[in-house]
Amino acid sequence: MAHINEDMLKLPGGYLFTEIAKKVSSFKESHPQAEVISLGIGDVTQPLAPTIVKAMHSAVDEMSKGGTFRGYGPERGYEFLRHAIAENDFRARGIEIDESEIFVNDGAKSDTGNFQELLGKDVKIGVADPIYPVYVDSNAMGGRTGDLGADGRWSNVVYMPCTAENEFIPELPSQPVDVIYLCYPNNPTGTTLTRDELKRWVAYAIEHNSLIFYDSAYEAYIQSEDVPHSIYEIEGAKQVAVEFRSFSKTAGFTGVRCGYTIVPKEVAATTTKGERIALNPLWSRRQSTKFNGVSYVSQRAAEAIYTAEGHAEIRKTIDYYMRNAKLMRSTMLSLGYEVYGGKDAPYLWVRTPQGITSWGFFNTMLQNAHVVCTPGVGFGPAGEGYVRLTAFGQHESTIKALEKIKTII
Amino acid sequence: MAHINEDMLKLPGGYLFTEIAKKVSSFKESHPQAEVISLGIGDVTQPLAPTIVKAMHSAVDEMSKGGTFRGYGPERGYEFLRHAIAENDFRARGIEIDESEIFVNDGAKSDTGNFQELLGKDVKIGVADPIYPVYVDSNAMGGRTGDLGADGRWSNVVYMPCTAENEFIPELPSQPVDVIYLCYPNNPTGTTLTRDELKRWVAYAIEHNSLIFYDSAYEAYIQSEDVPHSIYEIEGAKQVAVEFRSFSKTAGFTGVRCGYTIVPKEVAATTTKGERIALNPLWSRRQSTKFNGVSYVSQRAAEAIYTAEGHAEIRKTIDYYMRNAKLMRSTMLSLGYEVYGGKDAPYLWVRTPQGITSWGFFNTMLQNAHVVCTPGVGFGPAGEGYVRLTAFGQHESTIKALEKIKTII
Repeated sequence: MAHINEDMLKLPGGYLFTEIAKKVSSFKESHPQAEVISLGIGDVTQPLAPTIVKAMHSAVDEMSKGGTFRGYGPERGYEFLRHAIAENDFRARGIEIDESEIFVNDGAKSDTGNFQELLGKDVKIGVADPIYPVYVDSNAMGGRTGDLGADGRWSNVVYMPCTAENEFIPELPSQPVDVIYLCYPNNPTGTTLTRDELKRWVAYAIEHNSLIFYDSAYEAYIQSEDVPHSIYEIEGAKQVAVEFRSFSKTAGFTGVRCGYTIVPKEVAATTTKGERIALNPLWSRRQSTKFNGVSYVSQRAAEAIYTAEGHAEIRKTIDYYMRNAKLMRSTMLSLGYEVYGGKDAPYLWVRTPQGITSWGFFNTMLQNAHVVCTPGVGFGPAGEGYVRLTAFGQHESTIKALEKIKTII
Repeated sequence: MAHINEDMLKLPGGYLFTEIAKKVSSFKESHPQAEVISLGIGDVTQPLAPTIVKAMHSAVDEMSKGGTFRGYGPERGYEFLRHAIAENDFRARGIEIDESEIFVNDGAKSDTGNFQELLGKDVKIGVADPIYPVYVDSNAMGGRTGDLGADGRWSNVVYMPCTAENEFIPELPSQPVDVIYLCYPNNPTGTTLTRDELKRWVAYAIEHNSLIFYDSAYEAYIQSEDVPHSIYEIEGAKQVAVEFRSFSKTAGFTGVRCGYTIVPKEVAATTTKGERIALNPLWSRRQSTKFNGVSYVSQRAAEAIYTAEGHAEIRKTIDYYMRNAKLMRSTMLSLGYEVYGGKDAPYLWVRTPQGITSWGFFNTMLQNAHVVCTPGVGFGPAGEGYVRLTAFGQHESTIKALEKIKTII
């Protein structure tokens, strides 16, 4: 009989957000009168911008007529979108990214999850901790993480803790790692690295022949001048870094499904004999074998983000969410909570009251305030003792949730 | 430095259709006057049906308003679509498939490519030969296929040749295999298995503890009564078979990106210690970790296929393509070619003139008739000496292509 991939069996329970959804759904069933407000999963709530909607209608119309109908698109995305990305997200910031270095995808989760396929099983990964669970879980499925200990740590993963004690700035790894996963602005802590701090990481990767897988899905939320939007703002990064971007949070595309990945031509890994192999053509081979491109309508939607009108409209929505973040920060601080993030990111990272675990506080919030948060420990061992709150709610609901949180003290 | 997944380096050149596209593009550059007609890649040409277009516009409108906007959908697809699939594609045929056994995806290529991730590296695969290249290529990347010989055969794959000599009915594997990939109606040969023939395969899989990965992306083209639309029409299949379906060819969704996979609860693989592990929850874990669901607009588009109007409209388009297939069959036969398929499938499998290889005939067709076909050998060693023609063209272009093919004799 066929053998299972036993590495998959090492994963604990379900995927974090699936688990939370189950708990919330069970609470709602037993408390049908309760108005539960979610500040939990990082999902947007505001409708798509008018310019994006217009582009989508127009794309649907094209699909309805002979002559403009589109079948299979290029696996790596239409040129019109890759060009808009190269121009606006990079050249406008003085970064030269060639269109052939851009791979359009159906969301950053797919590519951050799948990219590890290009690497050998002996590759050692290092992750900022806490972090988006997909990086570690996909490597666990790929057999690279060793065994999961009772403390929530995988035996073969190097964790770089980010806590209040080090101001959420991870230390450089204390032992050699082949691949470093970084996410800035950070999910879940909402904290950032300055340009100078990110420089240290690029220098480290160059010096130690490591790769950096850089997730900047939240770059559109950056307000501070000295926080880089792309790792390629740092000199030398094109030699060592792959960058994952998403339109999900930039433009409310969580239900539209479109993002992209940058694989610079210089980035390489080696064979066991030491031959350098460029990752760009290898990723292209992976995508053309296992992926058939993104919905045409979604790609036209993404293109519309880069028009002047589209850009202005999505900025308004980002400001709307950041107004939530500001209010959440000030309210939680005034209630005496220790609060981090929320300045350059739509996430707040809140220390749980003393002696209460992440899941304990999740339960308190759900039971007593009917508010859903995300237990920090779900993002990694160093997340224990924190919860994540997101600013993606309706403004009115966010106010209501904060009122309810006031009552649990 | 990070090591590469060296299994990926064993793959020959590029993905088949990417290679063909390059050759065609180079021919067009050197022959700017030539009107090149493609009967090559299996891409549809007819616009989306009006009922589908209406559903997409309506979904876009929902996305434009607070209250009806949709963010992240369930990774396995919205209930409305899974319900429509269960009712129409299965219950209407007397097959009970539970909604929880249905996983909506962004196209069959993704799932046929990714599903092997659930299995151990020691799993031996058997494939009908010729076949859609994704099955073998994805297993090659997964390290299961051994080495590629000069004859185009991987050392650790069991090939089950389908040629004119055995009427394109593969023999049961002569040595044990863990997973059998079958695609019926077949891509590329356009041939089918009858219900009785498919019964033999299910019985074989049950007896030998094998899994069947069954791709029925072309079921909508079946005209004959005794050809099964789903492997689950065969008793016992739910114990051993995973079925991949696609809306790409059923409803012209190659640019819309939606399909689905059936993973029955009974289907299992084992640990090396012999413990049975159900694949359904494992696939769910894989998808919730590495996939974020399908575009809402695409899912509403798919749902519209199952309305009475939508169904009638897509049948018209399928008839349109099958009219092409009929004309292609009769013309090629009248020209003295040996032709297979094209009766229950949109593909024709044509024997090349004696002494000419698949790629040789591809070149002849391109140079002399300006027609693009697909070299049979690209689908596997037993495809040598054949080319595939597709019936997905505009009717007028198809007539024109056939006229030009007449001139090359």
